[in-house]
Amino acid sequence: MLNDKPHRRFNILTGEWVLVSPHRTKRPWQGKKDVKSTLENKTYDETCYLCPTNTRASGDTNPDYNGTYSFTNDFAALMPELPVEKYQNGLLQGQTESGICKVICFSPNHGLTLPLMSVEQITQVVQLWKKEFLELGAKEGINYVQIFENKGAIMGCSNPHPHGQIWSQSSIPEEVLKKQTSQRNYWSTHSKSLLKDYLEQELELDERILLSNDHFVALVPYWAVWPYEAMIVPRKHYQDISQLNVEEEIAFAAIIKELTTLYDNLFETSFPYSSGIHQRPTDGGSHDEWHFHMSFYPPLLRSAEVKKFMVGYEMFANPQRDITAEAAAENLRKLSRVHYSLR
Amino acid sequence: MLNDKPHRRFNILTGEWVLVSPHRTKRPWQGKKDVKSTLENKTYDETCYLCPTNTRASGDTNPDYNGTYSFTNDFAALMPELPVEKYQNGLLQGQTESGICKVICFSPNHGLTLPLMSVEQITQVVQLWKKEFLELGAKEGINYVQIFENKGAIMGCSNPHPHGQIWSQSSIPEEVLKKQTSQRNYWSTHSKSLLKDYLEQELELDERILLSNDHFVALVPYWAVWPYEAMIVPRKHYQDISQLNVEEEIAFAAIIKELTTLYDNLFETSFPYSSGIHQRPTDGGSHDEWHFHMSFYPPLLRSAEVKKFMVGYEMFANPQRDITAEAAAENLRKLSRVHYSLR
Ligand SMILES: O=P(O)(O)O[C@H]1O[C@H](CO)[C@@H](O)[C@H](O)[C@H]1O
Ligand SMILES: O=P(O)(O)O[C@H]1O[C@H](CO)[C@@H](O)[C@H](O)[C@H]1O
Repeated sequence: MLNDKPHRRFNILTGEWVLVSPHRTKRPWQGKKDVKSTLENKTYDETCYLCPTNTRASGDTNPDYNGTYSFTNDFAALMPELPVEKYQNGLLQGQTESGICKVICFSPNHGLTLPLMSVEQITQVVQLWKKEFLELGAKEGINYVQIFENKGAIMGCSNPHPHGQIWSQSSIPEEVLKKQTSQRNYWSTHSKSLLKDYLEQELELDERILLSNDHFVALVPYWAVWPYEAMIVPRKHYQDISQLNVEEEIAFAAIIKELTTLYDNLFETSFPYSSGIHQRPTDGGSHDEWHFHMSFYPPLLRSAEVKKFMVGYEMFANPQRDITAEAAAENLRKLSRVHYSLR
Repeated sequence: MLNDKPHRRFNILTGEWVLVSPHRTKRPWQGKKDVKSTLENKTYDETCYLCPTNTRASGDTNPDYNGTYSFTNDFAALMPELPVEKYQNGLLQGQTESGICKVICFSPNHGLTLPLMSVEQITQVVQLWKKEFLELGAKEGINYVQIFENKGAIMGCSNPHPHGQIWSQSSIPEEVLKKQTSQRNYWSTHSKSLLKDYLEQELELDERILLSNDHFVALVPYWAVWPYEAMIVPRKHYQDISQLNVEEEIAFAAIIKELTTLYDNLFETSFPYSSGIHQRPTDGGSHDEWHFHMSFYPPLLRSAEVKKFMVGYEMFANPQRDITAEAAAENLRKLSRVHYSLR
């Protein structure tokens, strides 16, 4: 298993290697500490642009919503229906990019986070993701829909109100293309889903599995880059979230709640992460190769204050991690399933 | 030039696209602020493990060095001469990785940084990089030598003493392989250096050039990802830094000093960044395609306290930037060449 020596592991989805240095966390840490992120206790904040009935920068007022609420980002990085314009000048090459950016409020309650929401409430979020995926993906010129969440100030999130984002656009992003290529190669050789086969192997080995229910499994992938990276994979070979039936939506919500609860319990903090769902492009292709999944990239490594820095070596050479995926899985698996703030 | 609309730009070195959203910095920032990094004023710190005559965690004592000093990292992520061991189990694939990690002290003076060092002092650093590149690269099983610096606490640097690192290893890292593929393709089609041709085009356009001297040019690449990303490119088609003669070493040192001075002057702060030199692998191949260059990836965007967060969308989809490369170049170019602390 190579686990006691520096080694590389291959990511079957992106086709890239990660460097693992299991002995490295022994070094003392004298570097930067971040502020521990705590839970909010207000249920309503009058200065929050996501709370119900408040007015946003655009001048629009949020409705007095229950459950979930979505709207077009007031400071969108992409704009809809730009005419295609190409720029080519010698070795310089550019192109306009159209898209739609939305904000997805998970709850009217300013103080909640996913692990503290009920399975019913999270199911409403899943249903909104499905709806947005279908609606945005059906639009002319929207060929990919990226659903994601930045949680915590350390992850660039400027508002603690529970929310995520969707950026949908005409091009298929780089990271999605990499995963598509690997899945397509496997599909065309084996007529089987790469991720389904991987999931079966992981279930048999049972070394990196965190949680499971009838429809979903949460695990630390063998090739994880971030210290406590995890992936939620549906047992069925679904290309996108719109294929989930109601029972499966609930199972998805339940495992999201359980995984984020383990995360919060690890360092007894509101655990920061970026999460995202990778699924088939909405470019009209059939995309049998795609097996949708949701990944979590949390930066914390040693404590609620000390994160893993992906800097010099990682930027210029190769992603590198300090603890093995197996050690991370073990640390998470042994934690209580009850949120620390409720004990 | 597409500059007023969201667009994508192609990186001819990595073969990847970056999303540019020029209008996006207009949004108000309510998120995380980092602590402004200030210059150190001690020339010697008795608790610093890099200062001359101090004892390190390993028990070794640093010599009373003048100029530069290098040693093997006491907490190295890689270990030398590991026997090659492969692990293959179904879809899991791993392999031991050998390597040598070194720490490079730029100066005995705890309070200096590159922009505050003299050209002569920086030339000594360049000469040490050359020496290490040749010595490490000549070792059996060392096929790539990554020279880099993490500067500032925000970049995971745990000690302000001016220093960089070298991680050298048996595999060629992912980021290097990407650049090698593009350069090799261009070389085999045109029998010319991709970067030399690009440099000529940039010099002619003169929109993104920051600095130049007889032997080097510093510019913001057309496809820059980080807000104030810059690249130092030699005018000659050199595969690696060992080819520099003394005059060229001095010119390299001079442009490093000038670029890092512009950086510090931008927000009147000790500007954080990770920098790295990409050059030919030391795997015995001829590597005519390689044109060495040094890149700087600084995170600050709006001020000394507010950085660009590469999070959800960037991790799951595509790198994204808020100001154009041209605007960044203009902001840097108009700054004084004299360091703000000396005015
Ligand atoms: O070796 P250092 O300076 O302690 O560590 C720093 O640089 C390394 C190489 O980029 C990273 O892996 C670490 O996360 C970072 O904290
Ligand atoms: O849109 P927000 O939440 O203000 O912005 C945050 O998420 C975006 C998408 O990952 C990033 O581009 C920004 O750097 C980050 O601060």
